[in-house]
Parts: sequence; C-alpha cells; structure tokens
Amino acid sequence: MAKDLTIEVAMSPDLYKYHSNDEAVVVVVDVLRATSAICAAFANGAKELIPVSSVEEAREYKDRGYMLAAEREGIILPFADFGNSPYNFTPERVAGSTIAYSTTNGTKAINMASNAYKVFVGSFLNLTAVAKAVQLQQRNLIILCSGWKGKFNIEDTLFAGALTELLVNSGFVMNDDSAKAAHDLWNLAKNNLIEYSQKVAQRSRLAKLGLDDVFDFCFTPDSTDVVPELCGKMLLQYKSN
Amino acid sequence: MAKDLTIEVAMSPDLYKYHSNDEAVVVVVDVLRATSAICAAFANGAKELIPVSSVEEAREYKDRGYMLAAEREGIILPFADFGNSPYNFTPERVAGSTIAYSTTNGTKAINMASNAYKVFVGSFLNLTAVAKAVQLQQRNLIILCSGWKGKFNIEDTLFAGALTELLVNSGFVMNDDSAKAAHDLWNLAKNNLIEYSQKVAQRSRLAKLGLDDVFDFCFTPDSTDVVPELCGKMLLQYKSN
Repeated sequence: MAKDLTIEVAMSPDLYKYHSNDEAVVVVVDVLRATSAICAAFANGAKELIPVSSVEEAREYKDRGYMLAAEREGIILPFADFGNSPYNFTPERVAGSTIAYSTTNGTKAINMASNAYKVFVGSFLNLTAVAKAVQLQQRNLIILCSGWKGKFNIEDTLFAGALTELLVNSGFVMNDDSAKAAHDLWNLAKNNLIEYSQKVAQRSRLAKLGLDDVFDFCFTPDSTDVVPELCGKMLLQYKSN
Repeated sequence: MAKDLTIEVAMSPDLYKYHSNDEAVVVVVDVLRATSAICAAFANGAKELIPVSSVEEAREYKDRGYMLAAEREGIILPFADFGNSPYNFTPERVAGSTIAYSTTNGTKAINMASNAYKVFVGSFLNLTAVAKAVQLQQRNLIILCSGWKGKFNIEDTLFAGALTELLVNSGFVMNDDSAKAAHDLWNLAKNNLIEYSQKVAQRSRLAKLGLDDVFDFCFTPDSTDVVPELCGKMLLQYKSN
C-alpha cells in the first residue's frame, strides 16, 4: 500500500522555515487580496505575472516598460498602473499581457517558496482546481499562508483548511497541528463562510480604505479553474499535460 | 467609559516579535509540559525556579550546586537531577527549594518575554488564577504560546483560547485574528477537552517515550491557584498584595 502523502500548514511566512522541503509542493495563499487577484488575472487572460517582493524592484519593472500592479497596505504605489483589487485585472487590461505585481504580503510569500518542487498560487477562486493540480503531483504538500506582516490571519488559514478538506479523503494525511487546526476552523466556518469571515481583521483594514467591495468575491469558491504556477521568476498558467 | 484592554496571541515564539510590547502583560504557556510542571512545582512548595534557555547554562547551574530539572525533546539531560514531568516536582523534592529548569521550548519562551511589564506562567493547572492575576494589572495582554521547535501547536493555542474566554467578558477584547481563532478552537474543544486534545502531535511524541501519563493532568483546569511570575532571572510566586 502506498504511503500517505502529508499536508502541513505554515500559518505565517515566518514559520515556513520549519516546514520548507525542496521535494514538496507548496500552495501559497493570500486571500485578501494578492492570490485572489492573481487568479482573477489569469482567469481574465493574463499571459504572465512577475511576483515582485520589494518596492524598489517594482519601480525597476515599471521603468523597464512593464505594466505594474503594486500596493502597500492597500494603497496603490504612486508609480504603479493600478493596485491589487482583483477587479483591476479586467480582460481589457490584462488579456495577453505580462504584469509585474507587488503586494504587502502575498508576492513575498510566493518568492519565499521558490525552492520547492512546485509552487502553485491558491485562493478560494480556484480551490478545487488547485486541489486537483496538487493531487496530480503525488508529493507532500505545504500550504503557505501569507498572513499580515508576519502575523497569523484567519482568511488564509480557512483556505488552508478548505484545501486540506479536499485532499484528506484522497491519500493525504494532516501531518501537523497547524493542518488539523486549520481543518477544524474550516469546518466551523464552511456552512456560513461569509458570515464567519466578517471577523477577520483584514476586512476592517480594507473597509477603512473603501476596498472591501471584493470581500464576497474573494470568499466565493471555484469561480475559475486556472492554477498559476511559479516557473523561474514568472507565474504562468499550470497545464497538467 | 474606560477603553477596552486588548488580548493578542503569539502562536509561536517566532511570531512574538510582532506582538511584543514593553507595557503589556505576557502569559507564557507550554502545556506539554514545561509550564504545567512549573505550576506543579510552586503548588508543591518550590521557593524559586530559574528558567534556563541553553543546555550549557543548565550545566553551569548544576555545577554551581543547584537542583537541576532539564530535558530536550522529552529526554532527561544526563547531568540533570530529573526531567520535566510535572510528577517529578514532588513536595519532598521541591518544597522550599530553588530549582534550575531547562526545557526544549517553554523556558526559552519565558526568557524571550522578559521585556514585558509582567510575565506570568500559565497552564490549565492555574487557568482561573492566571486570569485573575491578569485582570488585576489592567494592562493589555499577550499570550505567548511556546509551540514545538517554533511550530504552532494545538495545546498551547487551546489554553490561549481558554484564557481569552475568561477575560472577554470582563473588559478585554480580542485584538487580532490569532486570539479569535484560539477562542474558536477552545469553544470547539472545551466540552470534550481530553478527547479533542488526543489529536495533538505532542501526545504521540510523549507516548513514544512513555511520557504521556501526564496528559490528563496537564489538561485538567484549576488544580492550583499559584501564579508563577518572572522577577529578574527568577520565577517566584506572584502575590497580589
């Protein structure tokens, strides 16, 4: 009988070092809003995204002529073309394009995982599609929550629990307490997800900036089947064959 | 009307830097087994405990004639008098004594918090007593979970949720997602705590070493009203007046 594959959850980028494994698949999530926006961009036809960690690098990409989506703490950087609301990545803007993209938490987490066997970008938008892509690899899984400036957040943990739920009945086991806690929180929330997720701190932060219009959109599962994958320095759409 | 006091939870010592605040009270917890053992030691009459971070320091204290309790990953250090099962801290051994004490996770976390206004040692053994001591300070609270080698663990998070539950109805509010998640997990677990906590990874680790006999003891609330407090380099019993 085949050995079970394992699921671990890094609840913050600061804890990723305790889970990191070159042979594993990593799914990076930043529900509000980076990975939701990345999934929306690919769903709307973007060709490539370049996740950029620092403000300085973001400016360099802009200077080199790239379309740039970039914000810090919800505020669009003054030299960027637009910020990171998923609604900004319209088909008219992004179809066929290469976009440099830099955010407070999510793009840093994507780059942090680049040592892994494969890095997928996950959000509620592509939940089931990511689960299928993970299953195809037949590798151990680490779910990397982007958190908020290093701190734990509820929304990424709920996604980790939802992805775990889809995998535990098909050959995967929860390998640490964080996967089990994420799974329990998901089961507590899943039947009233929008209501439960009202409590997340990031909602209040976005509301103060008038940016919480994407809240329901970011918590609605399976609006797309695209799975962005990190290939070198680029995010591309994953193709299973 | 007085402003609410805040509760935050650092789910791992690696995340404490995002919560750290010189003006706050910190409760450090390591349910399995360091802070449970420290509470048991004071309940059985210990005069002082010296929390020691490194193996080298532990050896120095032993060489200087101190009674030494010290383990790493559940194994008693060869030069120690005994390990960190709460059952080792019997009245015959510890009454009136000063004990140097070093463990894998918990004693490091206690020393890490030494910048705080006050540092209390918490466990299920003294849950209600710690809540009362915190209330008397009228300061913001950070609950520091010792975790397992930097990783999140369920048992310390459950304690954080239990302590939060005792405080939210008396002038405290949950100030971050980690406090809210800990509180939700506690509410999920509290009516069948021993059964729920079977899933914690540390139970399996202890069982492999034949050390899980303390499991029920460590999850039973309020067997003592002692509250150990860090005073300089020493843990002493907190007196409210």
